[in-house]
Parts: sequence; C-alpha cells; structure tokens
Amino acid sequence: MNEPLSLTFEDRLAINADAVERLLRRLLDERPREGEIVRPARLLAAMRHGALNGGKRLRPFLLIETARLFDVQGETVLRVAAALECVHCYSLIHDDLPSMDDDDLRRGQPTVHRAFDEATAILAGDSLLTYAFDIIAGEETELAAETRIALVRGLARAAGAGGMAGGQALDLAAERESPDEAGIVRLQAMKTGALIRFACEAGAVLGDADAADRDRLSAFGGAIGLAFQLADDLLDMTASSESMGKATGKDAAAGKATLAGLHGEDWARSQLDGLVAQAEDLLEPYGEKGTILRQAARFVAAREN
Amino acid sequence: MNEPLSLTFEDRLAINADAVERLLRRLLDERPREGEIVRPARLLAAMRHGALNGGKRLRPFLLIETARLFDVQGETVLRVAAALECVHCYSLIHDDLPSMDDDDLRRGQPTVHRAFDEATAILAGDSLLTYAFDIIAGEETELAAETRIALVRGLARAAGAGGMAGGQALDLAAERESPDEAGIVRLQAMKTGALIRFACEAGAVLGDADAADRDRLSAFGGAIGLAFQLADDLLDMTASSESMGKATGKDAAAGKATLAGLHGEDWARSQLDGLVAQAEDLLEPYGEKGTILRQAARFVAAREN
Repeated sequence: MNEPLSLTFEDRLAINADAVERLLRRLLDERPREGEIVRPARLLAAMRHGALNGGKRLRPFLLIETARLFDVQGETVLRVAAALECVHCYSLIHDDLPSMDDDDLRRGQPTVHRAFDEATAILAGDSLLTYAFDIIAGEETELAAETRIALVRGLARAAGAGGMAGGQALDLAAERESPDEAGIVRLQAMKTGALIRFACEAGAVLGDADAADRDRLSAFGGAIGLAFQLADDLLDMTASSESMGKATGKDAAAGKATLAGLHGEDWARSQLDGLVAQAEDLLEPYGEKGTILRQAARFVAAREN
Repeated sequence: MNEPLSLTFEDRLAINADAVERLLRRLLDERPREGEIVRPARLLAAMRHGALNGGKRLRPFLLIETARLFDVQGETVLRVAAALECVHCYSLIHDDLPSMDDDDLRRGQPTVHRAFDEATAILAGDSLLTYAFDIIAGEETELAAETRIALVRGLARAAGAGGMAGGQALDLAAERESPDEAGIVRLQAMKTGALIRFACEAGAVLGDADAADRDRLSAFGGAIGLAFQLADDLLDMTASSESMGKATGKDAAAGKATLAGLHGEDWARSQLDGLVAQAEDLLEPYGEKGTILRQAARFVAAREN
C-alpha cells in the first residue's frame, strides 16, 4: 500500500479492490475459527458467491482513502474495510431476493438465490452481516477497544432500521405509495447514503481525527452518497442492461419515483456538478492529500456502471 | 431486581422476562436515535411483532442469573440480555419464512411474514440482528469498552456461520441428506446450543469472572443447550400443536433425524437426567447462589412448551 502517487485513480481503485478481495477470500475460507464448530461448506460458498463478486469496492475505497488522509493504512484498515463490504454484500443478497427486488443477475452473474437457493441466500446474507461485527471486534483488528466499539456502533446504526435496512423498507413501500420529494431524499439517504457516509466517517475514526475532521468527512460522505444515487438514477434511465450487468429501467417499470425522473436528466446532471464541487470544497483543508478523494467524487458522479 | 430469594423459580423467570420485555419495548419505539433519519413505522411494527411475543426469555434469564452469580445486576445486564434476545428473535423470524421452515404460527400468533409480508419479515430480522450490536456497543451500556467488544465478538461468533446461522443451514440440509449421529449433535450444538452457551458465558463476562469460572459457565451453558434440544425433540414427538402454539410432529414429517427419534423416548429422558446432574455439578462451587440456575437446568429438561 505504498504506491507512488503518480498512479491513476483507476489504478488506486483497482489496487484497493484487489487488497479487499484478497482479504475477504481469506476471511471467508472454511476453516473454523476459535469457538466455531464447523463452517458449513455450502453456506460459505454462498457467502463467497455474494461477497467475491468483482465489485468496485467503492465503500472500502472511501474508507481506506479517508484513513490515508490521516496517514493510517495497512492490515487493520483493510479489515474494517472488508467488514464494511460484508455488510454491503449482505444487503445486495437480500435486496435481490424474490420477495424484494427479485433480481436474477448481479454483475452479470446469477444472484445468490439463483446460484444456490432462497434459504441459503437468506442465511448467507445473515452470516455476512454477523461476520462484519466479528471482524471488527476481533483482536486481530489491532485497534484500541474504544475505537473498535465506536466502529461497531457506527456500522450498526448506519446499517439498521434507522439506516440502510430501514431505507430498503421505505423503498419497497415506495412502489405502493409514491413518496414526495422529501420522502425520496430520505429513503435514499438511508438506503444508500448511510453506508457511504459511514465509510468516510470510519476512515476518520481510524485516523483518530478530531471532531471537526470527522464532521467534515461525514459531510463529504453525505455528498458522495447523494451523487452516487443521482448517478444511479441516471444510469437506470439511460444505460443498457448489458453495460450494467443487471436489469435496468426497473425504477420506472416498478413505478418508483426518483429525483432524476422527477426533475429530468439536465437537472440531475447539474445537481451532480454541484455535489462534486461541494465534495471538493470539503476536502480543501487536506490539500494535495485530498487529491484521490476529489477524484473519487468525480468518479462517482460520472460512473457508467 | 432485589427480590427475596424465597420467590419461586417461575416467579423469577416471569420477573426477568417482564423486565426484558419492558426494555425491548422501549428500545423498539419509533423515535429515531442519534444518527438515524427515521425509523419506518411498519418495519418497527414488524420488529416488535417478532420480539415482543411473550416468550419465556430463557436466554436472557440465563444471562441475567449467571451475571447475578457474580453480584452483577441492573440496567446494563438487562441491555445485554435484550440484545441477545433480539438475535434469538431475528433467528425465529427468518427460520419461519416460507423458504425455510414455512411456519404460519409462533406462540399462537401469526408469524411475522404472515402478519406483514415476506420482505418486511426479512428486513425485520436483519434489523433486529443489527440492532443487537448497536445496543451492546452503545455508551448507554455502561461497561468498559473492552467488555463491550468481548460481548460483541462472542455474540457474533455464536450467531454467525460457524454458530447459529450455520446450524440452521445444516438443519435445512438435513432434510435432504440425513446426517449421522455426530452430524446431528453438531448441527444442534450450532443451531440452538451456541446462543444458549453464549448467554451463560456473557453472564460470566459481565460478572468479570476469571477464566476458570468462564469455562465452567460455558460448560454449564453447553449442558443446558443439549438438554434444551433433547426436550424440544421429545416435545415435537409427543406434544399437541395447541399446547405448543406452533406446529408439532414436523421433524418426523420433514424426515429430520433427531437424537430422541434415533434412540427413543426412554433414552432421551435418561440423557436429560444426566445432563441436569452435570449442570448441577458444574454449579457446585457457587453453593446457595447457584440455586436458581440449578432450577433452570431442571426447568429446561422438563419443559412442556
């Protein structure tokens, strides 16, 4: 993790993703850990199918690079990043289930309930969520107990009923009862925003940042989360399912209102520009060190899949 | 919680259950906590439906009474007990789902997916699991960070792929590929044993017990877990669905082998006697203070629903 800064943004994204993928592969092997009896082979295979899927690992990237702002890097940061990714991947597995979004494909591969079965997919999601807290809490994550417990609390709150899981509940309800604009903003801030914001906050916590820096990076995460969602709405309106590796046009088909759908593409693109500018402003105090996160903001806004 | 010891075992069980139920009711209200945006009403209602179900609260009871062995009691112990019960209730909600055990009734009430819908039941389970770690990690749980993180780690390990969730995966597989006796023992030790064992270990952790006491109470939890499962097998063979408030005779119907089914009722009852004796022996060093846990061992072995 001591690459020269001359690497491109895409290089850094790929290097971080590779490091997280390797660690996840080790964490998800079948060897029982202390206190475990067996790790059932089929369940672990389903967890790996859901977690080792070649994703961009955006949330781990934001966590790793936010920590690096404070000169913190290495195995411990990677472990927390991997735990965060376990939570993201659990949410994808459960969101794809027949009773939720009923998706057959994810990154061009069968979803976990299609590759295995529905019960195994539910349990694989449950197990990845549970494992995230195991990973952070473990002594192998070489942080003061106070820091580990702050990360557990922050992750649980971002992922729970008042965060990501609650956002998914609101999103399912939105198919029946069209929310107003404030309602859309709220559900998106929970469903996708909370975990992205936590990624940036967690990097600051790992970096032992003071309260002002934590607030600043939390706000940065908030702007990134909004940009991510707007870019997602635009992609759902305009991209082909081939380039996305999953079904597109689903929001409109499901009668789901999005901000981009409500106000149109031009509005959405101008909002995106504003969010990128806001994110860049927030990074101003970090000077050169903030370069990679500024690039990340532009990347999120411009992403094509 | 300063009742005289002359209360009967059933009184203490009911008093503890009531205290846990009251705390869970407070924890599961709709007021957003710091860092939360909203707690969606329907999701919270489903979480309450799954968690405030008038259960005996056996796991919290074991935790509370094990902590009391070491003269530790009060709100903090109750919070950890409530968190443990959230994990137990999440597992019931997910186990009842159509793709798992497909149960319509739980304690005589519609299961969460019948009272709400399948997606909401999945998210309610996810949210209760996540909330358990939030509750333990929170500063309101007035314990040293080291103690909170040990509890998070222990709970995650007991509940995860190498514990309860893995046991449920093995249990589902057992309908297809009949496990041998060792396989049955293993799956039960994971599916029901791990969380019961954790309840007793957690009480010792809360009591700041030394390693010998922790091991002893862990072994006590192991014996209780085995007894619980054998009693459950016997009930499934002999009890009516009315007295249980859920379907019975399901193990045989599903072709699931149980130890009681394999060796017969007489063997199972004599095994139960042996496990109670073993549990009582393990409590010997605690003298009078261990009375209530000795009664708990007998209660678990003799339970009728």
